[in-house]
Amino acid sequence: MSHLTLFYAPGTCALATRIALNEAGADYQLQYVDFAQGAQRSAEYLALNPLGRVPALRVEDGTVLTEAVALLPYIAQRFASAHLAPSDPVQFARMQSFHGYLASTVHVAHAHRKRGSRWADDEHAIAAMQAKVASNMADCFALIEEHWLGHGPWVMGEQYTVADGYLFTISSWLAGDGVDMAHFPRVTEHYQRMLQRPAVRAAMHD
Amino acid sequence: MSHLTLFYAPGTCALATRIALNEAGADYQLQYVDFAQGAQRSAEYLALNPLGRVPALRVEDGTVLTEAVALLPYIAQRFASAHLAPSDPVQFARMQSFHGYLASTVHVAHAHRKRGSRWADDEHAIAAMQAKVASNMADCFALIEEHWLGHGPWVMGEQYTVADGYLFTISSWLAGDGVDMAHFPRVTEHYQRMLQRPAVRAAMHD
Repeated sequence: MSHLTLFYAPGTCALATRIALNEAGADYQLQYVDFAQGAQRSAEYLALNPLGRVPALRVEDGTVLTEAVALLPYIAQRFASAHLAPSDPVQFARMQSFHGYLASTVHVAHAHRKRGSRWADDEHAIAAMQAKVASNMADCFALIEEHWLGHGPWVMGEQYTVADGYLFTISSWLAGDGVDMAHFPRVTEHYQRMLQRPAVRAAMHD
Repeated sequence: MSHLTLFYAPGTCALATRIALNEAGADYQLQYVDFAQGAQRSAEYLALNPLGRVPALRVEDGTVLTEAVALLPYIAQRFASAHLAPSDPVQFARMQSFHGYLASTVHVAHAHRKRGSRWADDEHAIAAMQAKVASNMADCFALIEEHWLGHGPWVMGEQYTVADGYLFTISSWLAGDGVDMAHFPRVTEHYQRMLQRPAVRAAMHD
């Protein structure tokens, strides 16, 4: 019996956690949450995760962990032999700074395309938010290109880490957000490099 | 000479990091970033933190760490003898789940009051976002009241952790966001309890 259960939906940021579990060689069960059927809003799922979102990871003692910024470092530290995070504490924290940027700024910029009703009720306001998503995502990726991808093949330099799966996940949203990834050569190379990894390919089988 | 420098502005989420450093008994220098003068957008500051935000923490080797979700666990682990985080890895990750919720959902809900221009250019859209801030923040705090504050005096139960300073910081925004904290008795008690702590009082001296 599997001890870890990942609650998952394709096309969401839960992909980053799935990639991390695959890279770690973790034994886990994948439990689909059917967003098309609104399963994330079912009483059963809300009892598990009152936010009604994925990812959620249920561990052995029944504790449910949520949020990529919690799950990615947890997986990296639990499966330490897979070396999915820097061992130096300052560099580990720097990786977490990147996770925080992706979660609180980049993912949020993206969410204004389909989830504008979270922040305004007026349909014109929601349309105005959608109109700004492409330029906001382009600004975010210009910063990622310059500030985070200048030092090596991976986000943290020579070492592949859980941060790479998170960047890959959000990069995969660019086309839908109206941004041509080709404007960001390092991001594009990173994306292509990720597609070569078996753990990533396995995670993309919906 | 101080080895740690916290780049700080009053009224921002950097308060949570300042509280954590105080609780840890850390030797650090406080460097004010004058938002009224736009100092967060100066070339000098952007070279340090290209996001133009606080908090940022410069450590001994010159590395600059950003984002509460990175700084709070870094401080807790670096000053381990202050016991500012659970020692159990699952509970540590659960604390990080809470940090992620505050950063990516609650802080973002709040930001639509004064920072709506990040997500739309239209002034009516920005007004529509402002109109929804109070109900969104009330929804967030209803979940915090029910889901996170039911088990003890502190977020993580019996143990005071860095998460408490983060919740306190965002609770302090409620009145400005048009939400009466009294609707949430546990949040209110938590806030009052925080105000008794010397490390918190010291952090509130602007």
